[in-house]
Parts: sequence; structure tokens; C-alpha cells
Amino acid sequence: MSGSWSIKDKARSLGLMKNEDAGSDVMELAAPPLPLAGDRFPEKPKVTIIDYSDQSYHEAEAKEVAECFHFKDQPTVTWINIDGLHQMDFLEKLGSCYGIHPLVLEDILTDQRPKIEDYDDYIFIVLKMLYYEDKEEDKTEEEDGDDLGESSLDMDQVSIILGPNFIISFKEKEVDVFNPLRDRLRTAKGKIRRQGADYLAYSMIDAIVDNYFLIMEKLGDRFEDLEDVVVSDPQPGVLPTIYNLKRDMLFLRKSVWPLREAISKMQRTDSHLVSEATKIYLRDVYDHTIQVIENVETFRDMSASLLETYLSSLSNKLNEVIKLLTIISTIFIPLTFLAGVYGMNFRFMPELEAPWGYPAILIFMLMVVVVMLAYFRRKEWI
Amino acid sequence: MSGSWSIKDKARSLGLMKNEDAGSDVMELAAPPLPLAGDRFPEKPKVTIIDYSDQSYHEAEAKEVAECFHFKDQPTVTWINIDGLHQMDFLEKLGSCYGIHPLVLEDILTDQRPKIEDYDDYIFIVLKMLYYEDKEEDKTEEEDGDDLGESSLDMDQVSIILGPNFIISFKEKEVDVFNPLRDRLRTAKGKIRRQGADYLAYSMIDAIVDNYFLIMEKLGDRFEDLEDVVVSDPQPGVLPTIYNLKRDMLFLRKSVWPLREAISKMQRTDSHLVSEATKIYLRDVYDHTIQVIENVETFRDMSASLLETYLSSLSNKLNEVIKLLTIISTIFIPLTFLAGVYGMNFRFMPELEAPWGYPAILIFMLMVVVVMLAYFRRKEWI
Amino acid sequence: MSGSWSIKDKARSLGLMKNEDAGSDVMELAAPPLPLAGDRFPEKPKVTIIDYSDQSYHEAEAKEVAECFHFKDQPTVTWINIDGLHQMDFLEKLGSCYGIHPLVLEDILTDQRPKIEDYDDYIFIVLKMLYYEDKEEDKTEEEDGDDLGESSLDMDQVSIILGPNFIISFKEKEVDVFNPLRDRLRTAKGKIRRQGADYLAYSMIDAIVDNYFLIMEKLGDRFEDLEDVVVSDPQPGVLPTIYNLKRDMLFLRKSVWPLREAISKMQRTDSHLVSEATKIYLRDVYDHTIQVIENVETFRDMSASLLETYLSSLSNKLNEVIKLLTIISTIFIPLTFLAGVYGMNFRFMPELEAPWGYPAILIFMLMVVVVMLAYFRRKEWI
Amino acid sequence: MSGSWSIKDKARSLGLMKNEDAGSDVMELAAPPLPLAGDRFPEKPKVTIIDYSDQSYHEAEAKEVAECFHFKDQPTVTWINIDGLHQMDFLEKLGSCYGIHPLVLEDILTDQRPKIEDYDDYIFIVLKMLYYEDKEEDKTEEEDGDDLGESSLDMDQVSIILGPNFIISFKEKEVDVFNPLRDRLRTAKGKIRRQGADYLAYSMIDAIVDNYFLIMEKLGDRFEDLEDVVVSDPQPGVLPTIYNLKRDMLFLRKSVWPLREAISKMQRTDSHLVSEATKIYLRDVYDHTIQVIENVETFRDMSASLLETYLSSLSNKLNEVIKLLTIISTIFIPLTFLAGVYGMNFRFMPELEAPWGYPAILIFMLMVVVVMLAYFRRKEWI
Amino acid sequence: MSGSWSIKDKARSLGLMKNEDAGSDVMELAAPPLPLAGDRFPEKPKVTIIDYSDQSYHEAEAKEVAECFHFKDQPTVTWINIDGLHQMDFLEKLGSCYGIHPLVLEDILTDQRPKIEDYDDYIFIVLKMLYYEDKEEDKTEEEDGDDLGESSLDMDQVSIILGPNFIISFKEKEVDVFNPLRDRLRTAKGKIRRQGADYLAYSMIDAIVDNYFLIMEKLGDRFEDLEDVVVSDPQPGVLPTIYNLKRDMLFLRKSVWPLREAISKMQRTDSHLVSEATKIYLRDVYDHTIQVIENVETFRDMSASLLETYLSSLSNKLNEVIKLLTIISTIFIPLTFLAGVYGMNFRFMPELEAPWGYPAILIFMLMVVVVMLAYFRRKEWI
Repeated sequence: MSGSWSIKDKARSLGLMKNEDAGSDVMELAAPPLPLAGDRFPEKPKVTIIDYSDQSYHEAEAKEVAECFHFKDQPTVTWINIDGLHQMDFLEKLGSCYGIHPLVLEDILTDQRPKIEDYDDYIFIVLKMLYYEDKEEDKTEEEDGDDLGESSLDMDQVSIILGPNFIISFKEKEVDVFNPLRDRLRTAKGKIRRQGADYLAYSMIDAIVDNYFLIMEKLGDRFEDLEDVVVSDPQPGVLPTIYNLKRDMLFLRKSVWPLREAISKMQRTDSHLVSEATKIYLRDVYDHTIQVIENVETFRDMSASLLETYLSSLSNKLNEVIKLLTIISTIFIPLTFLAGVYGMNFRFMPELEAPWGYPAILIFMLMVVVVMLAYFRRKEWI
Repeated sequence: MSGSWSIKDKARSLGLMKNEDAGSDVMELAAPPLPLAGDRFPEKPKVTIIDYSDQSYHEAEAKEVAECFHFKDQPTVTWINIDGLHQMDFLEKLGSCYGIHPLVLEDILTDQRPKIEDYDDYIFIVLKMLYYEDKEEDKTEEEDGDDLGESSLDMDQVSIILGPNFIISFKEKEVDVFNPLRDRLRTAKGKIRRQGADYLAYSMIDAIVDNYFLIMEKLGDRFEDLEDVVVSDPQPGVLPTIYNLKRDMLFLRKSVWPLREAISKMQRTDSHLVSEATKIYLRDVYDHTIQVIENVETFRDMSASLLETYLSSLSNKLNEVIKLLTIISTIFIPLTFLAGVYGMNFRFMPELEAPWGYPAILIFMLMVVVVMLAYFRRKEWI
Repeated sequence: MSGSWSIKDKARSLGLMKNEDAGSDVMELAAPPLPLAGDRFPEKPKVTIIDYSDQSYHEAEAKEVAECFHFKDQPTVTWINIDGLHQMDFLEKLGSCYGIHPLVLEDILTDQRPKIEDYDDYIFIVLKMLYYEDKEEDKTEEEDGDDLGESSLDMDQVSIILGPNFIISFKEKEVDVFNPLRDRLRTAKGKIRRQGADYLAYSMIDAIVDNYFLIMEKLGDRFEDLEDVVVSDPQPGVLPTIYNLKRDMLFLRKSVWPLREAISKMQRTDSHLVSEATKIYLRDVYDHTIQVIENVETFRDMSASLLETYLSSLSNKLNEVIKLLTIISTIFIPLTFLAGVYGMNFRFMPELEAPWGYPAILIFMLMVVVVMLAYFRRKEWI
Repeated sequence: MSGSWSIKDKARSLGLMKNEDAGSDVMELAAPPLPLAGDRFPEKPKVTIIDYSDQSYHEAEAKEVAECFHFKDQPTVTWINIDGLHQMDFLEKLGSCYGIHPLVLEDILTDQRPKIEDYDDYIFIVLKMLYYEDKEEDKTEEEDGDDLGESSLDMDQVSIILGPNFIISFKEKEVDVFNPLRDRLRTAKGKIRRQGADYLAYSMIDAIVDNYFLIMEKLGDRFEDLEDVVVSDPQPGVLPTIYNLKRDMLFLRKSVWPLREAISKMQRTDSHLVSEATKIYLRDVYDHTIQVIENVETFRDMSASLLETYLSSLSNKLNEVIKLLTIISTIFIPLTFLAGVYGMNFRFMPELEAPWGYPAILIFMLMVVVVMLAYFRRKEWI
Repeated sequence: MSGSWSIKDKARSLGLMKNEDAGSDVMELAAPPLPLAGDRFPEKPKVTIIDYSDQSYHEAEAKEVAECFHFKDQPTVTWINIDGLHQMDFLEKLGSCYGIHPLVLEDILTDQRPKIEDYDDYIFIVLKMLYYEDKEEDKTEEEDGDDLGESSLDMDQVSIILGPNFIISFKEKEVDVFNPLRDRLRTAKGKIRRQGADYLAYSMIDAIVDNYFLIMEKLGDRFEDLEDVVVSDPQPGVLPTIYNLKRDMLFLRKSVWPLREAISKMQRTDSHLVSEATKIYLRDVYDHTIQVIENVETFRDMSASLLETYLSSLSNKLNEVIKLLTIISTIFIPLTFLAGVYGMNFRFMPELEAPWGYPAILIFMLMVVVVMLAYFRRKEWI
């Protein structure tokens, strides 16, 4: 979930989590040892509470879990955002206050496919947020990723719990696509403050899907650069970059495909938590998701083409090199032979004695060169 | 939306638009800053109004928005065509007069998949018009497209609003596939003047789909040319052309596939805006769309073959070059060795003293050449 | 529709037709300028009328359209076959007599996917007839097809109008798969004369589908030949042949796939024009169509394999050539060096003075050759 | 249907049969000239009759058709097996006695996809039996198959007519997977004698499907062998073998896929001819069919990999050869040049006069060699 | 089922089993010779009985079949686990005691696709357990697997019979993913002891699916290693490893895909044996299965990329080698020719007499070298 984009880490995090889970039966223990997503962040999670209505707006950073509790029964819409998933008791307290099922808590902490599940009292939404990694921050992970190229696509799982008048969102990293959303809430811009929690949820999903377009723009840039290089100057160094791009594409695809189904499900839900007005907006997000999927598929097709084109480009280059070798060899090897012949030490070689011998052989050699060059010219090699 | 066909620009325009959109919440502001499609065209949009019935025909170019308004309540069919999407207030005024939903206006200004949406009072249709770019016009964009080949496929989004007695169409560029349609309206040719707005909408869709056949004809020409070159003379310069063709195919495909679904939806709609008589004609367009899709798929399969064939063709050529090198080397390297042997300065080399030495070695060399040539002839290399 | 199999011509005919169509609105004009399929055949269309019942049989070639009219109201089954689609007024008169919709007439004249449409009074069937072109006849078209190989697959569109007691069939070319059918009608062989027009329609479809098996047999022959050549002797000239075969396969596929759907539709139709007894026979044709499709798909898979195999075969050949070059070079380059050493003119080279010098170096050279040959033998290169 | 596995023969037999069929209208003639499957077997077909009940068992070889007739109305289960399909009148008499539709007889004689058809009074089942050809028997057919490799997969069509108390099975060849079944009937082993004709039909289908596993085992063996060779020693001779394997896979696939559908249909049939008890066993066969299909698909994927791997393996080998050539050339070409320099006949070349000249140049040459070897060693070429 | 992962063994075991089965009709004989899975384990099967309720816990290893019988009618949940499938009478006695259908017993002993079948009284579940083989144990099988690489993925079929209050599980090997499960039962950890047999079945399925994540982690490790090697240093030895990885992926896929369907079926079953509470947990397992499938597909796509990348990497390397050869040849061949010219023995070669001859030619040679190097530098070859 966190960290680098490499398959290895991915699989490991998955594997380990699932394994511990299998052995721990977390849902029942008094103090459940929830699977630990990562011990690399020993600090407390950052909890931001935004409480608003059409008229009021309140924003605070919570130090204690208890600070979140009293918002539950207020008519205003409350958005509790938690960055960092490493304090288990925090989550559990929050979960028990807001009546969240242990299975949901477990899902928040483990890697999930994008999905939307309806638990009557609340809707549980899992999304994947993609972003280009800030190279300065994650020095440690770059090491094993960098030798293969420049893959900098990273992913964070965003879990959203949509209740009647609250939203609780969970992320691991602070990198945030929700900032513009917060600004709109703060400045009372747009109708967002007048709408309910479901509209806020829609806005969050929309922000994440819109972010995919940005990612695709960056992938598109990398594509353009690669295309130029592949066709004009197929350096060996391009190979890992192409390979990496294909890998990124596959993972982008894995994040986006299930999203379509999930949003479609949310759009058709019977839940009272999603108003009809919001469903219209969800249709819009759904359209965007389809557009993202189509673009991803197009990228995928083109990245396949790119590798084949690279191979052809290499062949072209090889042909050029071999042609040069052949031209040089074909011209000079016969000449060298000729020189060799008149370097022989036979006693009776009449040409050697003739005064015209040397100029004659030089002229003959020149003629050979001219004929060869004419031949190559006709073949359009030179 | 406008401009070059490159992925990069595509993604950027998308990305930026979506982004601004996410931050602006346009649907509510008093003076909504509608996402700007491009500042490159600071001139006013060109608005053409055609108002006709079976008997009457009126055509004018509107300077002010207000000129469009009074047609709304007339029984005659009105076709308002807007080229250039860069004057926001114009669109808004028009939108509020004709009761067009802000979401529709937003869709007109952003890149959409081909689709048909039914808004009770009107039907909103989005189509992609493809055309080969006029090289003289778009100098600036050619620059980053030209280094990779000769892709000149361009796209414009055509949005059509079909009301009970009016059509409003939006395009960015003036390049126009609707001219024959206008001629038919002007000259009262065909039944088009006797039919309602839905028949006009059908005629517009038909004109766009028919245009795809023209595009495919041009792609077919490029294919034919490429096939000849690829098989007979696989120049390196062909590679970007093939790659470009594949890319064009992918984008053509992306424009055409959703169209099928959209037309099928319009054909099966319950809306009172589309008469049964028109639906029969839509079935015809639907058949054409299927035909376009099948052709695109065939082109796609063949462009894949083309790249593989190119690679094989390169291998063929390499084999030829290597064969030449091998023939030359195999003939002259042994000869050079022989000459080298008799160029050695050993004191006791009886052959060197013999008068038959030189002619003998020359004859021997000739025999070597003959044997080698016979060998290559038998191998069918020469 | 007519002429060569090349994409270019295909697209052009389509494009032009569609284009003219868009501008002409043919369905309404008093004298509709029906899209012209080709001006290459200025002669009159050949119209054959076969009128039969269980007892009677009448066959004639019509000079005038009017000759066809009086058959309409007779109880006997009438089969009007028109070869050549270039006399517009002829078609129109026929159409108006038999009550055929202008859209159907237009479809007859333009390229259509195989389809079956039910127009209450009659059923309109479009099929593709494939055949191997007679090289002697179509000199003009061979020119642009021949440079790429030997593609000789050609296609003609057969349109069949099945009425209660008549069949009207339209083709462009006289090449005819219906001759055996006519023979059976003439000789009163089989139950065909006792059955209605729907059975005749079935027999025509069956004849066309059976013809596909013949086409596939010929493609299979070309495959067999290619396989041998590709594996044993990968000449460059094979490449266009493979490419052509793949292209033929794609077009064959495009003709056959929609057929399946069409026949299935006809089999399940509610129309009174198709009797239950005939539907049973249609099931048989449907099974054959599936079989054709499966064979086409198998061919397609194998033609993909063929290109890959060709590439591998080329690599094999390249390896052989390079091996020869390496063997020759590896043996003679060191020897030449040795000869060069003793060709040096140093004053103090004791070996040169020794009487055993020359034989010694010769023996040493021989040893080098033997060692090298042994090395290559062990590597199984020679 | 019979004979070799090559596409050509396949298509030809199909094509010819269908063609004759189209011209002959077999279903009506008094003495219908049923399409002839092959004139290679002029002997009479071998007809075996097994009649059994729980208590009785009777086995005989029939000389005349009439011998089969009296079993029809007996309560015991009768299995009539016909090997060889070349005596038309035999089949017709049998067909008219047991009330078999002429279409079914035609299907028995022509190549069909595996299918199951319900004709109320009986169920008609077509299956493909695959086996490895006995090389000793079919000398004539090996000739055109052998040049491309060792494909020895052969196919026979087994048609089964399941009536209330009888089974009639048709095959062309005597090679028989039904022998174990006969043994079980003879020895009264298992419950097979106590069950009806439908259980016997199930047992026959099961025997054929089980046989597919044996075929796949043999294909698996060929795979294993190929894998070793392809990776370790990519001889050119491997190429046709791989290609053949792919072709076999495609045909195996074509035989197996429709089987699934057919068995599923038989399992869900309403016919009184198949008891519920037998349907449970058919579910088992269905599961096996799915397993066969999955294995075939896996083989197909792997045979695709195999060709790509072969190509890579060839590239590897080429690299090795080229490396050797480069090492030899890079070492000796500079040395030869050096020797050449001191072979020049300039009058004033001070080195030539020096007594240390010769040893110095030899030492220098040695140094060049050492440096070169070190360079290649560092590059891990040697 | 047991043993190595190679196709050959796989197919053989399948083939042989099926064959014997076909001939033996096992379901009826008094002493049924159940198909023998393998004679390599002549020891008795290891039978572990765990009997538990919320309060009690009993664990024992059974020596005799009879020990298992009395648990049948007790209200406690009984889990009978059998490792080793080679004692036929044992299984039969157990089967007859617990009322298990002979077909189920046969399925336990033969290779099956993962599936779930409802037999009213019990549910029969077949799963595939994958694990990395312990190299120390299976010496014999390594031999034929090792020459192609390092494939160490192994598979065991786990059959589970879920009755109202008992679970009987069958495996061939003792390697066990159920150990954590046993620990949880022993220590009364989690709610597992309070739940019924269906929850135990869920826990077992969950343990197996979770194990797939571990397998994928290890495959991911192998991928990472391969990626580095393929791109940076394409050794020939990598080829079998890639090929093996692809093969492993295909088999992993074959194990996982049917699982999805099976779990989905169990989740939607009407059987009273699966409680609604357990079905919710099955939904969780289903989600995990989907995730596994998506990962497998991603791996598959990437392994295809890997082979193509390898081929490109080889081409890169070849280009490098050829470049070196060309540089050396292009520099020295002309120089050698020059030296050859002045090694000719013509009597009248004025340069040879000149005192500046030797230095002049040396300087000229140097110039040639410099020009060549500059040329290669400009081409960025060196």
C-alpha cells in the first residue's frame, strides 16, 4: 500500500499482511493486533476535522481520538481525515464510536481493490490515489527502483466511510489531492457547503479521478519523449524505460478497471445515504472513469507498439553498422589482396620489373574502388 | 480538443481542464468562469443561423447572441451553428435562453466521448469529427508532431443540441463537413426542408459518419504506400510512419467505438424529439458505423502485421548485406593468405626460385575463386 | 464491390459513393441519380428470368424491364437474376414494379455487410460471394495488386430479394456459383421445383456458403506451399505472399462473421415468407457457416504463426551465413598474420635463415587449421 | 475426414463433398448418390453387432444389412458398430430400417463439428476421435506430411445414433478406443450391462474424452523434448517441429471446444432417451471436457512462448558466434597491420636494421594480445 | 497430482488414471481397485482427528479407520485430516461410514479442477494448494526439472468434505498450510471454536487463498531478479528461467481461475450446510481470489513483456559487439592495405627510396586513424 511501486514490495506487503491476518483472527480479540501496515512512520497519525454547514465552518487538528466523537450527533457535516494508519488503538476507538465493522477496519489497513460496499449505516469506499513520487522524500525506496529506470508512479489507498452526516477518510501519506476541495469548503465557494456528506464524497471521488488525468498527462509526456528517442536514436538505456512504462501502465490499469464497476454500483445503489441529485454527478464521474480506462487501454496498446518499434529500430541501426563494415571490407579486402600479390617474392614476376607496374596497379586499385563505390551507390547504401 | 493529434497535448488539455473544473465549481457562480478551451483564438465565435421550413429559407450570420433568441418560439426549424468556443458569456446567454443545463455547457467545452444524452427538453449529442489537417494553417503544432512522421489526422468535437424545432451545433474549427448539408437546405433539394429538426440532426450525424469513410480511404492510401515500401525497400524512415499509422488507428478507434453505442441509444430512445421515420434512417447510420468499426479493426490488425512484416523485411535485408560481406571475405581472405605466404622472406623457399612459381600460384588462386563461386552459386547466394 | 481486392479501391469506392449519396438525397428526386457503382461496364445488364413450378419451366433472357413485370402475379416461382448494376433506370423500374423500397435499391448499389432485413412484403438479403479471379479477364486491376504478391481473392456482392413467389438477385459480375442450381431447376432434379421461393433462396445461400469451402481449400493450398518454403528456404519473396495471405484472411473473415448473425436471424424470423421446412435447412447452412468461421479463425492463427516462423527461419539462415564467415575468418586471419610476421623485413630474424624455417611455419599453419577445424567440429558448426 | 491431418486434404475433402452435395440434392433421389467419403477402401464395411441385457450377451459380425434389422424391436440393448463408410446402399438400408433422417446420413458421411442433435426418436451425436497414427499403416499419407516435420496426430469422426434400445456407431477406421468398453460388456464387468443404451452412449463419449488425455500426454512429451532442445541447442530442424506442434494444437482445439457445448446440451436435454442417472455421469464427462480445454489452452499459450523462446535462443547463439568472430578479428587484424608495417620496403626504416627490432615487435604484439584478452575477459566474453 | 510440476508428468498421471478408470468401472466392484495415485509412498496415510466444541478440544492421530467413525454422530465439530491417498480400503471404509458417493472418492484420487459440488448431505470442495518445493525432499523429481531452470512451484490437491458437523480433508503431502489453523483451534483463539463446521471450511479455504499471496510474493521476487538481469546483462542462461516463469504463471492461473467460480457458487448456495454468517466471510475470500487473479494476469502480461525485452536486450548487445568489430575493422583494414601497398616489390616505387617515405606513411596512417575515430565519435559509437 505504501512505499515503492515495485511488484516485490507490493507482493510482500500483501503476503505478509494476509498471513498475519490468517493467524490472528483479529475480529474478536479484546485488544486486536490489527495488521501493521508499516513501522516506518512511528509518529502519530495526523487527524484533521472539518465541520461545516451552509453557515458555519470549523477546522481543527485533533490530538486525541475523543475530539472526533462529539461531531457524530451534530446536524452539520463532519469530515474527519486521517493521514497515517499506524496507530491501531486510534482507529479502533474511532471505529467503535462511529459503529464501524471490524472487517472494514481491516480492509482500511490492507491492500484492497477499489470497491464500494454498502453497510446500511454507512457506505465504505476504497479508492487508489496515484501520484508521481517526490524524489527527495523517499530516498530508501529509490534504491531498488532506480536501477531499472525512472518509474516514479506511486499509489496510496484512500478509504472513505460515508455516513449520514459524516465522512471519515483514511490515507497513509500526506500528499494530498483534497487540498482544492478544502479550499472550496473554507471559502464557501460553490454549492459544496450547502450539500450533504454524499456530495462531499462525490467531490472526493471526483478529485481522485481527475487526478488520474494528470497522471496520464505525465505518462503521455514520457511517451512522447520515448517515441522520439526510440525511433531516432535507440539507445540501450531506453529499454528499461519502456519496460517500466509498460509496468506502470499495467498497475494504472489495475487501479482503474475496478473503479468503474464500483462507481457504477454506487450510482445504482438503493442506499438512503446517496441522494438522487448526487447520483447525477456520479454519472459524470462514471463517464470520466470510462474515459480514463479508454486512455489507459490506448496507452497500453501503444506501449506494446513501442517495444516492437524499438526492436525494429535496433535492427535498422544494426543494418547501418553492418553496411558500413561491409562497405569497408568489400573495398579494402580485394585491394589488400592485390597489394599482397605484388608483395610476393617470386623471382620471375615480370610486372615487378616494368616501370609502369606500380602506376598501373595503383590505377587498377583506383578503378576497383570506383566500381565498388558505384555499386554501393546504386544499391543506395551510401 | 483542438489542435494537434499528439497524446501529450491531448492529455494536457484534458488534465488542465479537469483540474480547473475541480477547483472552480462552475455550475453555481454568478459569472461562471467556464473552463477555457484555448486562448489561441481571441476573435469572436462565428455564429451562423439557418431558419427554414418547407416554404421559407433564411440564412444569416449573427453578431450578437440576442439575434438567436427570437427563433426559439417560431414553428420553423432553426439551425444555429457556432464555430469557436472561446467566448464564454456568449455560450451562457445562449444556454440560458434555450434552457440548456450548465453541465451540458461544460461538456461542450471539454473533451467528451461520443455520447447521446436525453434531457427531456432536448437531446445532447457529442460526436468527433475527424479530418486531415491543412498543413498551411497550423504551423505551430506541426513542429512537435512532424519529427515523428507525417501524422495529419486531426479531430474536432461537434456538440449538437436537438430541441423540438431547433438545432444548436458547436465546433471549434471552421473546417466543415456540413457544407453539402447547407447546400441541400438552400436549394430545397431532397426532403430535408420538409422534415423536422430530428431529420436535420440525423443528416448531421450521417455527414460525420460518411466523413469517416473518407478518412479511411486516406488511411487506406497510406497503407498501400507503406506496404509497397515495407516489403520492397525497408528504409529506416518507414518506421515512424508505421508507428504513426498505428497511433492514428488507435485514436480513430477511440472515436468510433463509443459512437456505435450512442447511435444505438438514440435509435431506441423514447424521446418525442426523435420521430419513428427518423429512427429508420438512424438504423442506416448505425449500419454504417458498424462498417466503419469493422474497417478500423481490420486496419488495426493489418498495421500490426505491417510492423512484423517490416521487421522481417529488415532481417531479409540484413541477410543480403551479410551475404555480400561473407562472399567477399570468403573469397579474398584465403587469397590474401596465399599471397602472404609467398611474401615471406625465408631464405629457402624453393617455389620462389621456380620460373613456374608465379603463374602456378596465380592459377591456383583462380581455382580457389572458381570453387568458391561455384559453392555460393550452389547455395543460391549469387 | 467490384474490381480489385485492395483496401485502397475498397475505401475509395465506399468513400465516393457515400459522399455523393450525402450530397444527393437520392430517395426523393423524380429521376434519382442512384450512386454509380462503376462506369467500366457500359453495356446493358444481363437479365435472366427463370419461371418454374413443379410442372412447368420457363427460362428467358430479358431485353426490357417490362418483360419481368408480368411474372409478378403468377403463382409460379420466378427468379430474376441481374448481372451488372450499372443501368439505374432499369433497377428503378423493376423496383417500382415489385414495390422495393429506395433504401434497398441504394443498399444493392453500395457496399454492405452481409445482412438480412425483413420488409414485411419481402426479405432483403445481402451476401458476399468470394472467388479466385480469372487472371485473363481483369488486366487493369492486376497492375496495382500484383506488385505486392499474388492475391487473387475477389469479392462480389450478391443481393437477394425474396418475395412470396419471386426471387430477384443482383450481382455485378457474371462469374456464377448459381449454375449448378440452374441445372437442377432445368432438369427438375431434386425437390427444388416443388418448393417455394424460400427454398430457392436457401439454395442460393447454401451455394454461396459452400463456395467458401472451395475458397478455403485454395487458401489451404497456398498455406501448404508457403509452409514448405518458409521453413526450408525463406526467400525474401515469400514475405509479400505471407502478408497478402494475412490480408486475404482478414477480408474473408470480414465477409463471413456477419453472415452467421444474418443466417441466424433469418432462421428465427417470424416472416410468413420463410416456411418452417426451409428453416430446418437454414439450420444446416448455419452449421456450415460456423464451420467456415472456425476454419477462418484457425487459418488466421496459423498465418500469424507463419510470419513468426518466417522470422525465425531468417534468423536461422543468418546464423548459417555468419557461421561460415566466422569459420573462414577464424581460420585464415591468424594464418595471414603468421605469414605477415615472416614477411617483415627485419635484418635479424634467425628463423628466416634456417633451412627448416619454411617447412616449420607451413606445418605450424597446418596445425592451426587442424585445431580450428576440430574446435568447430566440436561446436557442431561443420 | 479420414487420412492425413494436413489442412489441404481437410479443405479439399470438405470442399469436394459440399460441392457434389450442392449439385446432387441427395435427399430425394430414389437411389441417392450419397457423397463418397473415399474410394481408397473398396472392401465392405465391417459391421459388428453386440446385443446384450443384464443376463444375455450376443456378439456377431454382420455380413448383410438385414442381419441388423431384427434387433430393432427386441428389448435388449443393441450396439451396431460400422467401421468404413464407403458402402452407400448399406447405410441407406440401415437408415430406412431404423428410421434415420437422410440429413443425418449425410452428416455421418461429411465432416461435422462435434454436436448433439435431438431427433425425437433418436439422438444424433458427432464426436472427433483423435489418435497418433500408426506409421506402418498409412505410408501414402506420410509423404506429404513428413517434409514439414513429424505430425502424426490423426482424426476420425465418430457418429453415434442413440435410440431407445439401440446404439449405431459409425467410424471410418478400425483403430478403436472402444475395445475396453467391449471387454467390459463381454465380461459383464461393472454395471454397464444392467444399464440402458444411454449409459452405453455415455461410456462411448467417456472413452473418447479419456482418449484426449492420452493425446495430451503425448503432446506433453513432445513439448518437454522441444523445450530442452529449444533452450539448449536451437537447431534449424526444430522450427518445423514447433510449427507442427502449434498446428496440432489448433486442430485439437477445434475438436474439443464444440464438444463442451454438445455435452452440456445433452446433459440438459428433455429427451426421454437420456435418463437422469446417466445425466449425472454426463456432468462428470463435462468436467473432463473442461479440463481438456484448459489444458489445450495452456499448451497453446506455451507453444506461442516456445516460438518466441526459440527466436531468443537463436539470437543468443548468433551473439556467441559474432563474439567469436569479433574476438579473433580484434586480436589479429591489428597484429597483421603491425606485421604489414614492417613488411614495407622503405629504404630508410631504422627499426629494421636494429638487432632488437624483431624481438621488440614480437613483444609488442604479445602485449597487444594480452591487453585485448584482458579487455574481453573484463567484458566477460571469454 | 503429486510430484513435479512438469507438463509431462502432469499429463501422464492424468492420462494413466483416466485410462485405468475407463477400463475398470470402479464404482461397482466388490473390492474396487481405485486408481492408484502413486506407489512412491508405501506407508500408511497419516490421519489426524480434531474434535472440538466451544468448551472441549480433542486431538488424536488415528491408526485405524474405525477410530473416525464414532465422531460422526456427536454434536461437536470433527475435522478428520488425511495426508497420503494411497490406502484404498481406508478411504472406502471412511466413505461408506460417512455416506460419501463413490464418484466423490474417485474425484479425491484424480486430478480435478477446483470446484464445489453440493451433494445434499455434504458439500464436496476441491482446491489446489501451491507451495515452493523443499529441494531436499524430492531429489528424484528435480532431475528432469532442473535442466530447464529452477521451477520449484509444486501443487497438491486438497479435497474437503463439509458435512453438518464434520470436515474431512484429503491431501497427498504433509506440507501444511493448515498449521496456523490448528494452533487457533488448540488455543481457543478467535471465534473459530464457537462456530460450526462451515466456518472451519471457510478458514481452510481462506488459508489456501492467503497462501497464494505468499506464492505470488515469491514469484514477484523472481520477477524482480529477472528484470534486473534481462535489462542489464542478458545472459543466455536467463532464457530458460523466463520460460519457466511463464510456465509457472500459466499453471498458477489454471489453479486460480476456477477457484473464483467455485467460491462464488458456494457463496450463493442454498445448502443448509453453509450459514449466512459464513457466507459473509466467503465474500471476503472471493474478493481475495479476484485480487489473486488480477495479480496473476498482471504477472502474465509482464512475463510476456519480459521475453520481448530480453530479445531487445540481446539485440542491443549484438549491436554493441558488431560496433566493436566494425570499429576495429574500419580502422585497421585500410591501414593494412596501405602497409601492403608499400610492401609490394615493384622495382620503380619512388616513395620507397625517399628518406621521408617511412615517416610520411606513418603520419598518413595516423591521420586515417584520427579521422576514423572522429567519425565514430560523431556517430556516438565510442
